[in-house]
Amino acid sequence: MSGNGDLLQQLIAVEEIKQLKARYFRLLDTKRWEEWGQVFTTDVRMEVPEAAVELDGRAAVVDNVSAALAGTQTVHHGHMPEIEITGPDTARGTWAMYDFVEWPPDADGNRVGLNGYGHYFEEYRVEDGAWRIARTRLVRIRVDPI
Amino acid sequence: MSGNGDLLQQLIAVEEIKQLKARYFRLLDTKRWEEWGQVFTTDVRMEVPEAAVELDGRAAVVDNVSAALAGTQTVHHGHMPEIEITGPDTARGTWAMYDFVEWPPDADGNRVGLNGYGHYFEEYRVEDGAWRIARTRLVRIRVDPI
Amino acid sequence: MSGNGDLLQQLIAVEEIKQLKARYFRLLDTKRWEEWGQVFTTDVRMEVPEAAVELDGRAAVVDNVSAALAGTQTVHHGHMPEIEITGPDTARGTWAMYDFVEWPPDADGNRVGLNGYGHYFEEYRVEDGAWRIARTRLVRIRVDPI
Repeated sequence: MSGNGDLLQQLIAVEEIKQLKARYFRLLDTKRWEEWGQVFTTDVRMEVPEAAVELDGRAAVVDNVSAALAGTQTVHHGHMPEIEITGPDTARGTWAMYDFVEWPPDADGNRVGLNGYGHYFEEYRVEDGAWRIARTRLVRIRVDPI
Repeated sequence: MSGNGDLLQQLIAVEEIKQLKARYFRLLDTKRWEEWGQVFTTDVRMEVPEAAVELDGRAAVVDNVSAALAGTQTVHHGHMPEIEITGPDTARGTWAMYDFVEWPPDADGNRVGLNGYGHYFEEYRVEDGAWRIARTRLVRIRVDPI
Repeated sequence: MSGNGDLLQQLIAVEEIKQLKARYFRLLDTKRWEEWGQVFTTDVRMEVPEAAVELDGRAAVVDNVSAALAGTQTVHHGHMPEIEITGPDTARGTWAMYDFVEWPPDADGNRVGLNGYGHYFEEYRVEDGAWRIARTRLVRIRVDPI
């Protein structure tokens, strides 16, 4: 049964990581920054190459992202996860991403925002008894102004 | 093995509830109202606070939603489920939501419709041998006219 | 335990088919055509009734789709899978679909493209040790020019 038990544990881990990423999106779009920080390991690394973003550590991620999105209204959706369990406490995954970010109108009252599309490439680790995002890299396919 | 057996049953329930919500969306967008009604318990409660919608019972939900969407073309997508099994026959869940609703053009031929974004907060119950939506509350993040 | 073992194998197959479809989308949007071909059985049939598309065989699918999308930038997202395992090596499934296809601008510099919405109706089969798409039929709900 250890074979089946292992497979069951892997499936449970896959579902837990999907729910982890769901909290990442939901807490981000509702700007619940303190809870949002808990989805990351303390040593998380975040990279968004096209924006030259490289952040290390949970505090840096929360501080920078919450500042960058202050005053915005955002919608982020993830799709089509490919989660691979690589060890008892480690995994990696890919997600398709859609985001919609709108800033306050400009001085002429025009809408300012973007629709973006891309993929996340991520690593996950169990820390303090829960799966968390240990590394995340966002590569966009395209960005359209609204 | 009862531990593993229970975990397996929970994973199966999570997958069944995901497919339940998939039918909710697919049958809604293809306006198959009678089949759509079957995704709900007979005593379902539906709330959409921003529209002051509070409906009780399957018949009221089907009658009101099918009337509200008569003549429209709709697309509803759910994302990022967080399903929690709370008992052998009960569960709750959260979903991100995107919808696109278009009514017939106005008298000047202009398009009339909306793009909406939000979250569903739901409860599920096994009734007549199948998981069904027992309570659903839709909270929008934003709505944009098209 | 054979009951539980079978259920576990079915859940694993469902997850594998979800990841198969994730590769279908990711490799399509990044135009990695040779890898993309591997998501299909050699005898795959692809149908898009509204475009009068009927293609038989992996080579025909890869050749025609890669030619049709040459010069485009595309985003395809799948949602809300309903996967049913119908035998040890066979399954069928339904997916909601969103796509965004943009061609190079026209002679006047105007953007040319579409936003589409619909459903895939599919069959899957294990071939050469992996789940692959054996039949896929795309039925659109609506298409909007951009």
